[in-house]
Amino acid sequence: MTKSTARLLISCPDAKGIIAGVAAFIAQYEGNIVEADQHVDPEHGDFFMRVEIELDGFRLNPGNFAGAWGPFAERFAMRWSVEWSNITKRVGIFVSKQSHCLNDLLWRWQGGELDAEIPLVISNHRDCEAIVRNCGIEFQHVPVTPENKAEQEARQIELLEAAKVDVIVLARYMQVLTPEFVAQYPNRIINIHHSFLPAFAGRRPYHAAYERGVKIIGATSHYVTDRLDDGPIIAQATLAVDHRDAIDDLIRKGRDLERMVLARAVRLHVQDKILVSRNKTVVFD
Amino acid sequence: MTKSTARLLISCPDAKGIIAGVAAFIAQYEGNIVEADQHVDPEHGDFFMRVEIELDGFRLNPGNFAGAWGPFAERFAMRWSVEWSNITKRVGIFVSKQSHCLNDLLWRWQGGELDAEIPLVISNHRDCEAIVRNCGIEFQHVPVTPENKAEQEARQIELLEAAKVDVIVLARYMQVLTPEFVAQYPNRIINIHHSFLPAFAGRRPYHAAYERGVKIIGATSHYVTDRLDDGPIIAQATLAVDHRDAIDDLIRKGRDLERMVLARAVRLHVQDKILVSRNKTVVFD
Amino acid sequence: MTKSTARLLISCPDAKGIIAGVAAFIAQYEGNIVEADQHVDPEHGDFFMRVEIELDGFRLNPGNFAGAWGPFAERFAMRWSVEWSNITKRVGIFVSKQSHCLNDLLWRWQGGELDAEIPLVISNHRDCEAIVRNCGIEFQHVPVTPENKAEQEARQIELLEAAKVDVIVLARYMQVLTPEFVAQYPNRIINIHHSFLPAFAGRRPYHAAYERGVKIIGATSHYVTDRLDDGPIIAQATLAVDHRDAIDDLIRKGRDLERMVLARAVRLHVQDKILVSRNKTVVFD
Amino acid sequence: MTKSTARLLISCPDAKGIIAGVAAFIAQYEGNIVEADQHVDPEHGDFFMRVEIELDGFRLNPGNFAGAWGPFAERFAMRWSVEWSNITKRVGIFVSKQSHCLNDLLWRWQGGELDAEIPLVISNHRDCEAIVRNCGIEFQHVPVTPENKAEQEARQIELLEAAKVDVIVLARYMQVLTPEFVAQYPNRIINIHHSFLPAFAGRRPYHAAYERGVKIIGATSHYVTDRLDDGPIIAQATLAVDHRDAIDDLIRKGRDLERMVLARAVRLHVQDKILVSRNKTVVFD
Repeated sequence: MTKSTARLLISCPDAKGIIAGVAAFIAQYEGNIVEADQHVDPEHGDFFMRVEIELDGFRLNPGNFAGAWGPFAERFAMRWSVEWSNITKRVGIFVSKQSHCLNDLLWRWQGGELDAEIPLVISNHRDCEAIVRNCGIEFQHVPVTPENKAEQEARQIELLEAAKVDVIVLARYMQVLTPEFVAQYPNRIINIHHSFLPAFAGRRPYHAAYERGVKIIGATSHYVTDRLDDGPIIAQATLAVDHRDAIDDLIRKGRDLERMVLARAVRLHVQDKILVSRNKTVVFD
Repeated sequence: MTKSTARLLISCPDAKGIIAGVAAFIAQYEGNIVEADQHVDPEHGDFFMRVEIELDGFRLNPGNFAGAWGPFAERFAMRWSVEWSNITKRVGIFVSKQSHCLNDLLWRWQGGELDAEIPLVISNHRDCEAIVRNCGIEFQHVPVTPENKAEQEARQIELLEAAKVDVIVLARYMQVLTPEFVAQYPNRIINIHHSFLPAFAGRRPYHAAYERGVKIIGATSHYVTDRLDDGPIIAQATLAVDHRDAIDDLIRKGRDLERMVLARAVRLHVQDKILVSRNKTVVFD
Repeated sequence: MTKSTARLLISCPDAKGIIAGVAAFIAQYEGNIVEADQHVDPEHGDFFMRVEIELDGFRLNPGNFAGAWGPFAERFAMRWSVEWSNITKRVGIFVSKQSHCLNDLLWRWQGGELDAEIPLVISNHRDCEAIVRNCGIEFQHVPVTPENKAEQEARQIELLEAAKVDVIVLARYMQVLTPEFVAQYPNRIINIHHSFLPAFAGRRPYHAAYERGVKIIGATSHYVTDRLDDGPIIAQATLAVDHRDAIDDLIRKGRDLERMVLARAVRLHVQDKILVSRNKTVVFD
Repeated sequence: MTKSTARLLISCPDAKGIIAGVAAFIAQYEGNIVEADQHVDPEHGDFFMRVEIELDGFRLNPGNFAGAWGPFAERFAMRWSVEWSNITKRVGIFVSKQSHCLNDLLWRWQGGELDAEIPLVISNHRDCEAIVRNCGIEFQHVPVTPENKAEQEARQIELLEAAKVDVIVLARYMQVLTPEFVAQYPNRIINIHHSFLPAFAGRRPYHAAYERGVKIIGATSHYVTDRLDDGPIIAQATLAVDHRDAIDDLIRKGRDLERMVLARAVRLHVQDKILVSRNKTVVFD
């Protein structure tokens, strides 16, 4: 029912006439703009834009877009990418023992809410194997130790490539990925951290939150970079707690936050609504 | 520091090429678009757009804009308006006895947060007179009874016109305005209702909420129309309550909601971020 | 790990010395109070109390409690009940076609989060049959038409009794129960309504919310009474939406609210934290 | 209208029979308990209780309470205090240049919402002098430099004692108090920090939040201890922001959070609803 679109994402130094130029370019190829968002970061003079163009009638396609667009983009020194909504994104999920985020993503996927395919789940444990296989999804058990991490990451990349995965979701995956691995998927690995970052980065955030006596807990979804829990934040949410909440209650309540926030981040990513710049995100939602 | 801009608000039937056309028009007059938002209501095929253009360098101004833009607008059957950010909006406030919303608006205005002038406060009581006069603002006492309502509304309109008021804010004004009065200020009278509309429309909503035993209370800011508490909603907010909250607690907690929601609605209006269509608002924030 | 407790729920006219009397009674039988909450409704002079007593060392049990407590309770004209945490509550779920609330409850139950057993799911459709059976839970298909409603409700009650169900959860069950059925389970049928009640009671609340142009949607869990969507509210939650949200978006976002709110209500019920009085709830959480 | 009460706050090691003992003690002196809350920290075995007793009919008063209660309290090794609601708390406010939190407290105080007296405002600047004097409140200008801090704090304490101040509220007071000063008012100095602690402790939290690209900002009210921004947290609140919010927007939106959170903390304190233990608060609300 929803019409297929091309989604054009642009960042460049701000300049006069960019929007008019982009709109004229699209009109020239008979595209109909169904959504257009832009933002200027006044501090750095960065310009960001997201344009969604109906494919129906548009004379550009994956084959000829770059050729036509390239010279125009160069004039404004644009970093850009284009995504085609009729080419469904392929999500690979990494999980450890805890299943709530995985389960939630699978449930949304089954309900047609996720707008993506899930061809592969990789885990360093076998706890979630049955859930995954019951959904008809490939499950790969890749246990990781400090000794075999390098070769296991090579194995993971092999599996991801075989499954043509576009974006990796760490659904409470408790292993730290190496910088080498991360470099393969820039702004394409989404993590959920079970705290309101930058508070309580690192291990056992609910224990730390309990210890500090906070009155609100949070969850944060972000792109993974070399620096642990420090990548560009995509989505966050918080929830009130009080002195009656023991650590187990924080963990229980937090699970709901984590599920919501991760699902929101994945949805934004597969709909090509996120631009990254200077370790921050611009989310056109 | 913020640069002056023209804010162009457009509604029309959706059609191919509107955005490109608008952008080209603005480029033709050497305008720089600093913000552009659009929205299509897929149900009715309505197109909405808000464009903000830097005045610096723009060859159109309040004197020549309509002449240049009119023919283009006609082509797309646009309803449109243009506002100039260097012409500060003038807000007239109506209040009865309760001062919290008035106070809050005055406080924001004094702090430079409101982006508007407040030349006039009209009240059917004298309770808020001192607060208003202390701010150096004209206060007019216009008591209203069922018998004198027509003539008092005439008096109010006279005062509003003398003070060159652009938009009226009912900051807990407890009189119902006549359709004749409302017709003078279409989508230019902002009310705050102390419930989550459409729940608990009418009188004494906190009492009704208490009686019903709701676990959340709310506040709603909307444009005033002929139908009581039924105009286009601009902003809403809610707050958790529980069985320990007596009616007085709901009233107390609700005051904070009302202040926030009304301030938000007024701010959106004076920044020309609201379009109204089919008794609903499109808020480009 | 959590110690077993007796949960004593009391409502009566307020009077001097109730708390002291209750505490003395429990001390007399060597009970250790691990939690005690009370509330006085000052409007009606109603007193409410919830006391949780460790079973370890307590000289009263399901066999002798009523005999000992009865005379004391009578002195204060108490309505009271006592629940024993080591007797796990049995939840029967009713569902129609939409599975999200059912799924969520099953997921929490499997994760040990629900503190209850789920021996039976009844549905007027077969859509959720596989999900239920995969969890090893009895699924009964009881299709309902206007003609056969009476006999099918008799069938439902038979099944509920056979499964020793204590509380019924309507997890988006789209049939209205008859007053006769409801009378069998006073304050023991929990419904989820997909709006912020009392706004948008009845059918298709998301459509109504969209039509009205609200800026916040909600979900409400309540006990079922004879009057549709009018029973005592247990829990509510809300979520911001805007003009970009089509009806489908409201439905999608609302699903998350519904899941959360229903799960919260069921949890409160099975932990015996809810008292009902005058069509309102006192929730001791 | 509200009846006067004694508010008894207790912390001690958990033990059998405390609640019954307390209730019996109060009954012995013909007190009527109108509210009773308790909490056990299962990790440390700490017991906390707050009991509110109607003064009407109660045979204990500020003169004879300690004598009667002392021996009982000793038996359970209680730390305890008793507050009398008919002895209104006296709040001293410290402020620097920014007036929003001060203003908000004054506004609530004038509206009868605060349940306290405000006899004194101390500031290291003169910006807020007029606001304070207009309310008929004593304003003292006590400028502080690194050199004169010790003597100026001595002066402040003198003023606070002369005004019989019970609790100090730092309403965006930008000076760090010395440990010597803090030691004079243990758990009686309430600060508002403009971030979601422990994130962004220290200076310029909105700038830090902007830099990090968080999607939610917060405010935290806490008791002041020797360690900067690390005292027991009383109340927190958060608010969604996005990439369009410049630092000035965070500051503007944050002001509303700060006002709400500080007012809430002050209200809880003056109603004797907060117990402090192990650098955390138990808030009986």
